[in-house]
Amino acid sequence: MPESVFPPLQNDRFLRALRRQPVDTTPVWIMRQAGRYLPEYRATRQRAGSFLDLCKNPELACEVTLQPLERFELDAAILFSDILTIPDAMGLGLYFAEGEGPGFERPLRDLAAIQALGIPDPEQELGYVMDAVRTIRRELAGRVPLIGFAGSPWTLATYMVEGSSSKEFAQVKGMLYGQPAALHLLLEKLAQTVTLYLNAQIAAGAQAVMVFDTWGGTLTPEAYREFSLAYMQRIVAGIRQEQQGRYTPVILFTKGGGQWLEAMADTGCDALGLDWTVNIGTARERVGTRVALQGNMDPSVLYASPEAIRAEVRRILGDFGQSTGHIFNLGHGIHQHINPEHVRVLVDAVHEFGQQRS
Amino acid sequence: MPESVFPPLQNDRFLRALRRQPVDTTPVWIMRQAGRYLPEYRATRQRAGSFLDLCKNPELACEVTLQPLERFELDAAILFSDILTIPDAMGLGLYFAEGEGPGFERPLRDLAAIQALGIPDPEQELGYVMDAVRTIRRELAGRVPLIGFAGSPWTLATYMVEGSSSKEFAQVKGMLYGQPAALHLLLEKLAQTVTLYLNAQIAAGAQAVMVFDTWGGTLTPEAYREFSLAYMQRIVAGIRQEQQGRYTPVILFTKGGGQWLEAMADTGCDALGLDWTVNIGTARERVGTRVALQGNMDPSVLYASPEAIRAEVRRILGDFGQSTGHIFNLGHGIHQHINPEHVRVLVDAVHEFGQQRS
Repeated sequence: MPESVFPPLQNDRFLRALRRQPVDTTPVWIMRQAGRYLPEYRATRQRAGSFLDLCKNPELACEVTLQPLERFELDAAILFSDILTIPDAMGLGLYFAEGEGPGFERPLRDLAAIQALGIPDPEQELGYVMDAVRTIRRELAGRVPLIGFAGSPWTLATYMVEGSSSKEFAQVKGMLYGQPAALHLLLEKLAQTVTLYLNAQIAAGAQAVMVFDTWGGTLTPEAYREFSLAYMQRIVAGIRQEQQGRYTPVILFTKGGGQWLEAMADTGCDALGLDWTVNIGTARERVGTRVALQGNMDPSVLYASPEAIRAEVRRILGDFGQSTGHIFNLGHGIHQHINPEHVRVLVDAVHEFGQQRS
Repeated sequence: MPESVFPPLQNDRFLRALRRQPVDTTPVWIMRQAGRYLPEYRATRQRAGSFLDLCKNPELACEVTLQPLERFELDAAILFSDILTIPDAMGLGLYFAEGEGPGFERPLRDLAAIQALGIPDPEQELGYVMDAVRTIRRELAGRVPLIGFAGSPWTLATYMVEGSSSKEFAQVKGMLYGQPAALHLLLEKLAQTVTLYLNAQIAAGAQAVMVFDTWGGTLTPEAYREFSLAYMQRIVAGIRQEQQGRYTPVILFTKGGGQWLEAMADTGCDALGLDWTVNIGTARERVGTRVALQGNMDPSVLYASPEAIRAEVRRILGDFGQSTGHIFNLGHGIHQHINPEHVRVLVDAVHEFGQQRS
């Protein structure tokens, strides 16, 4: 959807920070901000049926996307969806067993299964996602920008090969070390699919896109470059950032990737997501101003008191320093048992202390 | 036990490498080498009763400690025990529910509970551990050195405050950010206890000691220094390394600590354990020769073929390079479903390729 069909953006802090332009105060959004810690989310989720039913229902996905914006002064919305929509569209049979996390009915265990995989057409097989993007853009009415997202090829591959969440990655790492050609074929197909998928989200209205590499940090530095970063690099190169009358920034986030920030910045992405194991000031020194930085409060700080939350927000803003290009966020998704009032304390503290910094 | 009561050491590669002295080939041992991947371990464990019964039975703990040495040409033995013997001795009531990991009947939830904690006398309340050390030293008869160990104060505190294994650390991080003085008191008591415990293990015959900081990598850099590293530093300072007619090296291992190796080396420890997210050659450049390095193969490589295992061993030895001070190990404990024959491939490959390097 060309940008001209939408109402003008009222709050562009997030997009300005991604472009390393001056802002009136530091923008903030929260990974998994539309989620189980919010009672209104739990209510909609119950109406929807399963988690997957909610993902596949554009109206309800829009509803939960907007819920945190009604409560908090967040500077961006993020599409409510799941990274595993892609393997589902590739025919693996996604399901969520209550309390057990995601699973696939038909995990990939050999080269033949990987060779048989097709590349889904995002407007066909993932049309419900694009419908959700269009619906959310319409309902946002220019309040804040909308972020689209996808999982990284490596992260998607871990679920597709293991068939479920994993701590040891026996199958996929067995493949990485024992049948690297098979894994590369899978990652190539996934890089193509993710590129098409993110381009379709941008065409539908996403104003920034983020690649979640949740499991890149479980790799050696060598394997990370070869099996995760190389494919994110292809995605960055393949995203049509200039389209629909706007420039769409790309954010890369490897959880546990603090040792590899320089290499991530070299992909040409616009911003890096940081987990909390790296000091954001140190990260700034290491990568310079060629990328914006998003992060990086430990989500567990939200278990502590409002005073402790405010102190940690102030510490992170101070460590980032006076330069432009900071989007405040947690270093990982918000946990489900967090008190929503603590999120308000966080968001308001970012805007209060971020202003003093600007 | 003074060193003179034991038979002379026949294989001192491990201790020489810890002292950065030349060796004929690279020494190797494996974290959790006495464990569930070995059928003979599973048999002894069944005879013992529970996992905790096995830990508390010096004869059977000795038996399982020696089992991997019967199969593989390992260069060190490690005491069979568990890091949670300490909180058990402090009265928290340790139990292992089948398939669920460890738990405590009386987790620490407030300052009063922490204030009430005593410092256990290792020869009294943990006498079964010292008996195991003495029994193992006698049965080893000088074949290879024996490593003693303990958990880091922070890692022990996570279990003691959460009451079980955790992914989110809601309670202990809530305490860290919200009641730091209470957590510091707990960590002080634990640092004292661990120091006494490791000194007692050395007095009983342990020829090297290792501190396992399994959960230090879940902290911010600032919190890591204040709540984990500072207490490991006190332990290093408090260990009587010169006693019993020998020098006992200390190894520190923070899983996920790859970004903080310089600070860890600054504690004055003798060696750092590395997980696989850092290249061992890069680590060597960063910390220089003031510490030995132990690691750092991804345990999941053992799921792959013998050829792939040999290639990865060769890669790591090559990356470490020609200098002294390398002990080969995995970057974390061996997984339970590994084929023991793959461990043989690993151990033999280290000795084969390590020799070419020496």
